Amino acid sequence: MKELGGEQVEGRRAVRELLVARRRRVRDVWLSVEDDELMSLAEAGNVAIRRVSRAQLDREARSDAPQGVLAHAAPLPETPLEQLCDPATFLLILDGVTDPQNLGALLRTALLAGATGAVLPRHRAAHITPSVAKAAAGAVEYLPIAVVAGIPSAMRVLADRGVWTVGLDAAARHSVWDMEVATAAVALVLGAEGSGLSRLVRDRCDLLVSIPQRGPLDSLNVSAAGAVAAFEVARRRRA
Amino acid sequence: MKELGGEQVEGRRAVRELLVARRRRVRDVWLSVEDDELMSLAEAGNVAIRRVSRAQLDREARSDAPQGVLAHAAPLPETPLEQLCDPATFLLILDGVTDPQNLGALLRTALLAGATGAVLPRHRAAHITPSVAKAAAGAVEYLPIAVVAGIPSAMRVLADRGVWTVGLDAAARHSVWDMEVATAAVALVLGAEGSGLSRLVRDRCDLLVSIPQRGPLDSLNVSAAGAVAAFEVARRRRA
Repeated sequence: MKELGGEQVEGRRAVRELLVARRRRVRDVWLSVEDDELMSLAEAGNVAIRRVSRAQLDREARSDAPQGVLAHAAPLPETPLEQLCDPATFLLILDGVTDPQNLGALLRTALLAGATGAVLPRHRAAHITPSVAKAAAGAVEYLPIAVVAGIPSAMRVLADRGVWTVGLDAAARHSVWDMEVATAAVALVLGAEGSGLSRLVRDRCDLLVSIPQRGPLDSLNVSAAGAVAAFEVARRRRA
Repeated sequence: MKELGGEQVEGRRAVRELLVARRRRVRDVWLSVEDDELMSLAEAGNVAIRRVSRAQLDREARSDAPQGVLAHAAPLPETPLEQLCDPATFLLILDGVTDPQNLGALLRTALLAGATGAVLPRHRAAHITPSVAKAAAGAVEYLPIAVVAGIPSAMRVLADRGVWTVGLDAAARHSVWDMEVATAAVALVLGAEGSGLSRLVRDRCDLLVSIPQRGPLDSLNVSAAGAVAAFEVARRRRA
């Protein structure tokens, strides 16, 4: 069974939040650059610091530009889906978002928009790789994540607990700006880049909305679409 | 003097839109994969097709993943700033956005949100590299782009022509959701990742707005922030 991952964290911001959040055990921090703040944070948390050469660090790194910083930690904890259901729920369900940049960016955006959790499918791309964690810039340390066997059955669990599901679909008649349900317990469902929502997931959504788009191009990148939709929920929920 | 660039275009979508838009002369299309649509488009436009090996294509490519497709073309035309000023104006001014992924994503988002143009500073990162063009997924073929000597003086030109400038600033008191000026001629100003707007640019904005954010993280990625702000303008402008 695939775990959520997250054992290797790379990049300055991601490692900083790992050390600040203190939600999981950190084995060591590798540094090939001077960084007083990370040194103090590691010392304060009794985390071993390893000074390494740039070459050693780059050999160990699995993301593109680790910025001279990486850490090893216990895996990210998974949160049971049921624990993410309450009257204030605001979830992002990511069904088949596989690009690490997009997945990481969406988790960061979700947290900043005030989302209370994210839901990922276990069989596809659930793993928080170093590239995902880096793109999330520390968001994975704070945002509760549920990993589910299948999105359609997770949607049934949400429905039973009074959480509305709103799918983003370019062909939808309703606009994201008419999403009155945003102030209730709600989950936004985003599909794969290119192909969008699967038919079963689309059929199971309580509401489908599109982001009105102009001009000759196809469609928004999934992380831009997610940002627009997540902050539209935030706009409706303010005050 | 730095030109706008765009002479080498890589990736399927970017090359497709180059051939569809027909806004500039295309010298040749290199293909290391089968692609009937691109072949037809190139033939219809009398563009030479060069079948190459994957290795040849990757040697010529300058972006990460050219997807077996690249093209050589005339440089992108620059649009004089004055031509971008009319009562329906909706511009994105990008002051120091240097990351190619972010710059490309913002140009794509701008076009899809209904922006009528973009403004880039000549001295910093104005060049549309293959990576920028690829991330823009063809948006550079349609979106008019003005390249200016300096953003502050460009803002004076806009002010003289009745275009309001709205800066995105995390410390601003006003919220992006109270941007009533969005229905007038308007330009959104986005600063560099990390450092944000320069002091001079900030001082010259007619209005500063922030995107209300939750939780412990720093701030949104500039391309997510740009998507939220650009589509907030679109929301205000809809019928």
